[in-house]
Parts: sequence; structure tokens; C-alpha cells
Amino acid sequence: MTQQLAAGIDIGGTNTVFGLVNRKGEIIAYGSVKTAEYPEASELVKAVSEKIQEALPPGSALAGVGIGAPNGNYYKGTIEFAPNLKWYGIIPIAGYFSEALHCKAILTNDANAAALGEMIFGGAKGMKDFLIITLGTGLGSGIVVNGSVVYGHDGFAGEVGHVIAIPEGRLCGCGRKGCVETYCSATGIKRTYYEKKNIQSETMAYISSRQIFEQALAGDKASIETFEYTGKILGLVLANSVAYTSPEAIFLFGGPTQAGELLFKPTRESFEENLLNIYKGKIKILPSLLNENDVAILGAASLVWKDVNEMVSL
Amino acid sequence: MTQQLAAGIDIGGTNTVFGLVNRKGEIIAYGSVKTAEYPEASELVKAVSEKIQEALPPGSALAGVGIGAPNGNYYKGTIEFAPNLKWYGIIPIAGYFSEALHCKAILTNDANAAALGEMIFGGAKGMKDFLIITLGTGLGSGIVVNGSVVYGHDGFAGEVGHVIAIPEGRLCGCGRKGCVETYCSATGIKRTYYEKKNIQSETMAYISSRQIFEQALAGDKASIETFEYTGKILGLVLANSVAYTSPEAIFLFGGPTQAGELLFKPTRESFEENLLNIYKGKIKILPSLLNENDVAILGAASLVWKDVNEMVSL
Repeated sequence: MTQQLAAGIDIGGTNTVFGLVNRKGEIIAYGSVKTAEYPEASELVKAVSEKIQEALPPGSALAGVGIGAPNGNYYKGTIEFAPNLKWYGIIPIAGYFSEALHCKAILTNDANAAALGEMIFGGAKGMKDFLIITLGTGLGSGIVVNGSVVYGHDGFAGEVGHVIAIPEGRLCGCGRKGCVETYCSATGIKRTYYEKKNIQSETMAYISSRQIFEQALAGDKASIETFEYTGKILGLVLANSVAYTSPEAIFLFGGPTQAGELLFKPTRESFEENLLNIYKGKIKILPSLLNENDVAILGAASLVWKDVNEMVSL
Repeated sequence: MTQQLAAGIDIGGTNTVFGLVNRKGEIIAYGSVKTAEYPEASELVKAVSEKIQEALPPGSALAGVGIGAPNGNYYKGTIEFAPNLKWYGIIPIAGYFSEALHCKAILTNDANAAALGEMIFGGAKGMKDFLIITLGTGLGSGIVVNGSVVYGHDGFAGEVGHVIAIPEGRLCGCGRKGCVETYCSATGIKRTYYEKKNIQSETMAYISSRQIFEQALAGDKASIETFEYTGKILGLVLANSVAYTSPEAIFLFGGPTQAGELLFKPTRESFEENLLNIYKGKIKILPSLLNENDVAILGAASLVWKDVNEMVSL
């Protein structure tokens, strides 16, 4: 019998990685290209598609292509004005992949893909209502309500990173001020540390959020306070978030979660403190159970398997 | 042929009103009792059920009972610790009605019921993703995603009134500080007016939000500024809300919306100003199309008709 495989593709500003994933969530082949080497999205699609075809084992067939990308629109299959990608404007990336690989291609943003990955292969198995927050250069979010990712009217739902946490607060890459992303992403953690140390750094490369974590473990006061402040704001925003969809759990994912209790403890404390009474003590804040290296691929592949499952159950 | 009717019941702190509603949304009979006259919820149910049975026209049958109530839990059919009701603790109100009237009884909170009413009989017909914000003594909300009200894991989703808009802001009835309800409900509007006039009133009865509206129309500066401030905060909170579910429209309902552009204009301006770029210019802020006197009954009855529709389509 032909083995059905889903191609999971994650398009990032630096690298585009892909994997071939079976229904159990095993990645049986990996590959990657440098995103910035392709001035046109169609050229990247051609290169990735060729690599996918080469990687397909004999006797296997593509069930579909799932793509996670910043500003990816689920309904239209387009990447729209992604600030971290070179390609300008609206890119019909799902259409390109569908044509190149002669199968269905489904696109969503990277955090929505992570939500699906968590639901199908990770810690949210069996949960119908949860959030995932991805902490990286930015802060992404995927919202699952009643077993389905919330895409919203226009396909762009789930931008919790751009909820304004502090009115008139830090300037955000989106052009507005005070977005939670400017406080709680890896970059936000660095900005907090710089403020505490009174460093006027032109570059964010001066220190990594991982180094701040290591300094905190070693007892550095500014680094410990940085995580406390991060957790305080993240906890407040998550408490507010609960008032929308009342989830069973909130998963945190990404580099800064490696700080463990240094991040989780102040986050949980601020969360419980700021929760409305009816929600108190009910909602778990958990680390993602997905491997950080694989989540993007598994999440993107989950788009395919969720779609296939729904076709079967119709 | 027997005419099927839904009983729509709205339990409020002062009055419990009900109506018999056909599938077109016509209310063919009304009734009410004083909520506070019933020290036990079961006694209120008995009284209301008798009135419903009396009101049923010959040749008609109850398709079901829909109930809107503060802190109403959709999954459990219970009213839980509602601050404005005298009954203490957890009240299995849907079970009481189901027993008394020998039919299915479905409960949700009043704002979720309003969302359903707007979707089935009001301005949200044909919309799959929208919010409704009900402005009254408090601020309620109903969130519709992909054609269904969001109830969340525990049945208590949609408490936008208790999103913290101003950290460490005004003391809220929920015991926390800065909830949007303390700024943008009818009561919140009065509190803003008192602040602007520097009035230390012990009572909120000193002036109504309607009088502030009339004063604003007459050119009173403090009253005009009160609505501007209300809109500024409401617009910011609604812009943040969009980042969760990306709705097609947001409906405003309740007494303060009678102020019309005095409220809507600053709300829309603050909303657009605070929206993330990808959402700008896409989302309508609209007055509810439901009659204020009927919405609670129609919304509650909609619980029945939505349930019946879903049974048919299975």
C-alpha cells in the first residue's frame, strides 16, 4: 500500500525548512534552503518542491502540503506584507506549491500551525479549547476554540502579540506602541534587560535572552528582575486573554521558555492574580510538548492531516 | 399543524421577563415577574412556568426553553455566584425549567443570548464572526466564531467587560482594578462624568447616562468629554479584541448606544487608531439592530431555535 506523507514547510526570514511527516507525526525526511537567496517566492517554491520530490521514498505519495509562514492567510493561501520576508506585497504561496507538487496546499501563519501541531501531536491532544503563545523574535499566538483554530473573518485572527499591553508603551515593529510583543518576546526580554542595566544599545545582538537566563541562574539581579517583569506582563495579558475564549490551558513555546520556572513562576503568579474569579485555579499554563526544532514542520504538516481527517468524517 | 414556540426567558436582578417566540422572531406573548420576590430560584421557576403555560395559545407546543441570565453556564445549565441575584451559590436553573415544562431548557449568559439574537434575528444575519458588546449596569460580551457562540472550556467565555483596560485603574465590582466595565458601561460613563465634575457622589443615582448624553447634546463640556473618554477606552479595548478573533463586525447594544455618534465617533476613531495594520478599515462598529426591549427574550429564544436547527442538520 502506498504510504501517504504530508509535506510540512516552514517559511522563515532566514531559513525555509521542510519535512515529510507520516500520520503518527514522525518526520522521515528533512530539508532546508536559505529564504533570502530567493528574490522571488516562486523560485523558492521551485527549489523546495524539487527537494521534496527527491526526498519522497519510493512507494510513497504526497497527501498534501502544509505551509506555515508569517502573515500567512488561511483562506486565501497568501503571504501578505510579511515584514521579515523580502518578497513584497501579496504572495500566492499556496497556489505556487499546489501547482508545483500537484496536490492540495494549505497555508497558515506559523503560530496557528504550532497550535495545530500541539493539538495533533503535542500536549493539547484531546483539548478542544486552548491557546498557544510562541515566544521568539516576535510573539505569535494560535487560538483553538471547540477543536478548531480560529482564523477569523479575514484569516488573520490570533495576533495576541499585538494586543496593546501598556498604552503608550514601547515602540513596536508594527508602528504602534505598547504591544505585548515588545515586552514578552525574546527581543522584549532583551529590551527589559537593557532598561534595567541602563544600556543604550543600538543592537539587539549585544546579549541573547538565553544569556540573560544563564545570568539569572547565576544570581544576577537585573536578569532575575527581567524575567519577573516579563512574567508580570505576560501573566496579565494571558489573564485578559482568558476572558475571550476561556481555554483549558495556555501553552508557551519558544526559546525563552527554556528559562523554565524563572519565566513560568512569575507568569503564573501574575496570571492568577489578574484572573477574574470565575476562572481562577482552572487554567493551566504549560510548556509546549513539541520539540522546538520540529514544531514548525509538524504544525505545517498538521494542516494536511487535519484537513484529511475532516474530509473523511464528512 | 401544531405551532412550535420557544420560550425566551431573561433573568435579571430586578425583573424576570419572558416571551413566546415563533421561528420568525415574532414575540406572540409577553410576561414578567419581580425576581427579588422569590427567595428561592425554584419558586421563581414555578411562577414563570405557570405563566408560560397559561400564555401558550391553543394548538401550540413548546419547542424548548431558552434562558439568559448573569453568570449562566451553557454546559451545566447553572447560574453560578451571580452578584446581582439574591440566590446564593450554584443554581441548576435549566434543570428546574426542564422539569417544570417537560422540554429541553438551555441556559447561557445574557450577552451570549444577545449575540445569538443578533445573529438569528438582527444585524449579524449571515455573519460568521462577530462580537456583541452590551452596555448596561455592567459590560457584557458575546463572541461568535465561525457561526457559533464561543462558550470556552468551562462555559464562561466572553467576559470582555472584565478585561483589564487600565492596570491599577478603577475598582471593579469583581474585586479587581481597571476592568473595561468600570469605564465603558453605563455606570462607568457616570463615574467618568463624576471625575470630570469632581463630584464625590456616594450614589450612582445622582445622574443617569442618558442625562449625561442630553447634557452633551446641549453643549455641556464635561458631558461631551465624558463620551470622548468612554469612546477612547472602548475603542482601544475593541482594537485589542480584534487580535483574538478577527471579527467582521462589532455590535454595540444597550442604553448608552442611544447617544449615537457622541459615543460611536470617538469609539471608531480610537478603534482605527489602535488597530493593527492588517485589520485597519476592515471591521465595522455597528449599533445592534435588535429592539432593546425584546433582545433578551429573542436572544434566549434563539438558544432554542439554534439548537433545533442543528438537530435538523445532523
